[in-house]
Amino acid sequence: MPSRSMEELASLCKRRGFIFQSNDIYGGIKGLYDYGPMGVELKNNLKMAWWKSMIYERDDIEGIDSNILTGPDVLKYSGHVDTFTDPLVDCRSCKSRWKSDQLENKSCPNCKSKDLTEERPFNLMFKTPIGPVDDGSSYAYLRPETAQQIFTNFKNVLDSTNRTIPFGVAQIGKAFRNEITPRNFIFRVREFEQMELEFFVKPGSDEKWHKYWINERYNWWVNQGINKKNIHLHSVKKDELSHYSKSTVDILYDFPHGKEELEGIANRSDFDLGSHTKNQKDFNISTKVMENQKSTTKLGVQELESKSWFIPFVIEPSAGLDRGVLAVLNDAYKEEKIDNNNSRIVLALKPHLSPIKAAVIPLKRNNDQLVERAKSIKKILQQIGVGRIILENTGNIGKNYRRHDEIGTPLCITVDFETLESNSVTIRDRDSMQQKRLSTEELKEYFKNYFD
Amino acid sequence: MPSRSMEELASLCKRRGFIFQSNDIYGGIKGLYDYGPMGVELKNNLKMAWWKSMIYERDDIEGIDSNILTGPDVLKYSGHVDTFTDPLVDCRSCKSRWKSDQLENKSCPNCKSKDLTEERPFNLMFKTPIGPVDDGSSYAYLRPETAQQIFTNFKNVLDSTNRTIPFGVAQIGKAFRNEITPRNFIFRVREFEQMELEFFVKPGSDEKWHKYWINERYNWWVNQGINKKNIHLHSVKKDELSHYSKSTVDILYDFPHGKEELEGIANRSDFDLGSHTKNQKDFNISTKVMENQKSTTKLGVQELESKSWFIPFVIEPSAGLDRGVLAVLNDAYKEEKIDNNNSRIVLALKPHLSPIKAAVIPLKRNNDQLVERAKSIKKILQQIGVGRIILENTGNIGKNYRRHDEIGTPLCITVDFETLESNSVTIRDRDSMQQKRLSTEELKEYFKNYFD
Repeated sequence: MPSRSMEELASLCKRRGFIFQSNDIYGGIKGLYDYGPMGVELKNNLKMAWWKSMIYERDDIEGIDSNILTGPDVLKYSGHVDTFTDPLVDCRSCKSRWKSDQLENKSCPNCKSKDLTEERPFNLMFKTPIGPVDDGSSYAYLRPETAQQIFTNFKNVLDSTNRTIPFGVAQIGKAFRNEITPRNFIFRVREFEQMELEFFVKPGSDEKWHKYWINERYNWWVNQGINKKNIHLHSVKKDELSHYSKSTVDILYDFPHGKEELEGIANRSDFDLGSHTKNQKDFNISTKVMENQKSTTKLGVQELESKSWFIPFVIEPSAGLDRGVLAVLNDAYKEEKIDNNNSRIVLALKPHLSPIKAAVIPLKRNNDQLVERAKSIKKILQQIGVGRIILENTGNIGKNYRRHDEIGTPLCITVDFETLESNSVTIRDRDSMQQKRLSTEELKEYFKNYFD
Repeated sequence: MPSRSMEELASLCKRRGFIFQSNDIYGGIKGLYDYGPMGVELKNNLKMAWWKSMIYERDDIEGIDSNILTGPDVLKYSGHVDTFTDPLVDCRSCKSRWKSDQLENKSCPNCKSKDLTEERPFNLMFKTPIGPVDDGSSYAYLRPETAQQIFTNFKNVLDSTNRTIPFGVAQIGKAFRNEITPRNFIFRVREFEQMELEFFVKPGSDEKWHKYWINERYNWWVNQGINKKNIHLHSVKKDELSHYSKSTVDILYDFPHGKEELEGIANRSDFDLGSHTKNQKDFNISTKVMENQKSTTKLGVQELESKSWFIPFVIEPSAGLDRGVLAVLNDAYKEEKIDNNNSRIVLALKPHLSPIKAAVIPLKRNNDQLVERAKSIKKILQQIGVGRIILENTGNIGKNYRRHDEIGTPLCITVDFETLESNSVTIRDRDSMQQKRLSTEELKEYFKNYFD
């Protein structure tokens, strides 16, 4: 059973060091959250799982890591400057500002006045002056998505690798949107991370590849521990599609606040490279693109046999990393009855995502012999290289088990006085709560196999 | 021998997909660079080496990952709003703007006019409106360093873990400075990554810990392959110290453009937590801090025995990640004579930093049997989990060796027709250029041992 409410989950996240309100000691800032000691490991593990599945385990994708500060031309030709907006309405009476869909019966939710302005578009991009002179002439945006720099680097990647179509370029990184009403914990925030793949294909093969990626991405989320009952494929209706999209399928997840988007997989046709290429007229671009006189680079590729040039189509699986963290946490959250009087909270995370892979716990705090032995066991397990192992020198086994259940540590290893004599330890399994005794040699094998 | 010039290094970086100018197709933006397919792996490997050395291999440091957008209060009390400035001078004649130290004999470098304004402070922080109303009342800064959010999260980390003094909090992330004159490739840029540790200690033990961290950090850089000849410890003179610093030692590297800072290790005393704590008067703060009425949280800790409260001192090793990448690349760069007529460029990177750990190369391009066998060998090596293995299906062994020497791939594995018969491959070592034949079983062991 997932968590019962967002509040329950947010409370665990704060208590156990997953996620804190940003700028907390100065009252916090709406829509900004920091990842704590457990959160940063979980998030990095989810990133690494994605990167492995995209770059390491395939033979047709390259990675990049580009800048957040983005020049105005990039976002002009991508369409963001003109169309990346929310409709806003001002209250003339109390001067507050609202999204149109927040208005109660066309009256201000704050003062109930009906003296409201017409709807106006409000651009969601953050903008900052750049360079020494702040006269409005020189500025950059914080990118609203990571995708655009994949398109502007298309030729750079082609020229520096041996790639031919079909191939993809993947990126993980921060993006920023000045949301009017950030809400639902880390679901809708102003600073977030995306995991985006732009997969370049021959026109005509795009529908086949679109289906392929929908399937791949669905399975990937299931492999991160999301129960199939809680994710759903949703075809976006033709009249709700973004202007660039030929078709889009969303992967929805049952978040505590409702069924919402975790990832979108769009067939973006030739809109992106067609928008950013020079010499647009040399190509038979199928979508409506803005005339581009500024691009210095041809973003087409040449057909090997016919020697003709074309603009690749783009299939884009675009996932929200923070939403992924939220979904994974929510799906792993369980409150279990242990017996008639006791229950426990446990995060049944897949082991590859757990922030801590094992806790090594000396039975007595600050007992030199036990602590030294625990340290050497930690070191052996750490070298296996599956992630963070922690030494818990607090001397309270029960409290440690409770903590490690709640942060999803799969294995707890207790070092006691018998360890000093027989060189064996107790290992406790998070899910079954079963304990058994293993020699330290057996432990190493057990640990390796567990994470394989 | 390191590279002979920054140009030589930048040229390799572009050609081989390490680093591209950002916004390239629209003419580029000064001081912004993107990491390409090889660069992202190298950078991630360097990050991981740091993270492992800080979090995984020690028992006294926690990690976090906080927001880039930072509230004005945080940067007011840290001193950045008032003092994070460069002195600038305007030319009244041609309206250009300059750093004072760029002026040639007190005349404008552009029009040679001597009609210049007085020096004025120019704040280096990027600033953006936040929230729907852009009337100047609601804004955030892009953090100029990652350190501040470690201080503002000090209590959150303490409360969610079992830490006691001494302990540290580490973070890797982007920071932003509106440099007037970005220069020297990725050395001085406007968007960059930092690897910062804030290590909290008892006052009185700070000098001992400062020495300890100088030594640790120096050794870490040597372990990343930097030749000891090329790095130097430099004690910052008392009168050049930042206002918060009791003493600072810089690790300098011989960059192609000169000897400059790679990392700074500062004893920041109780300035940071003292600046951000509430009830400052309850503590005996040793440094001069701004009066803080806004903080909601006490950032001191209680002495176990005496029960008295104190503000921990901070030792801060703060490293530039991009500068680290530049140093590692430069130190690994070699041009070698192979014989009288031929030479090669090779990046002698430490194997754990190499973007590609091994290239598996079928002797003939698109030969189904060879390619299938190569794929299965790639898969076996990939599962060992040391990083990216690549399949090179180009059919040109010589060209592949050249490319993989230049990107620092330690091992190239050729799959030929003998492989199909005897199940053996040729393995070529980057540094010795020696080749030998191994069975695929031997290969797996060889590969494992090589990266251990």
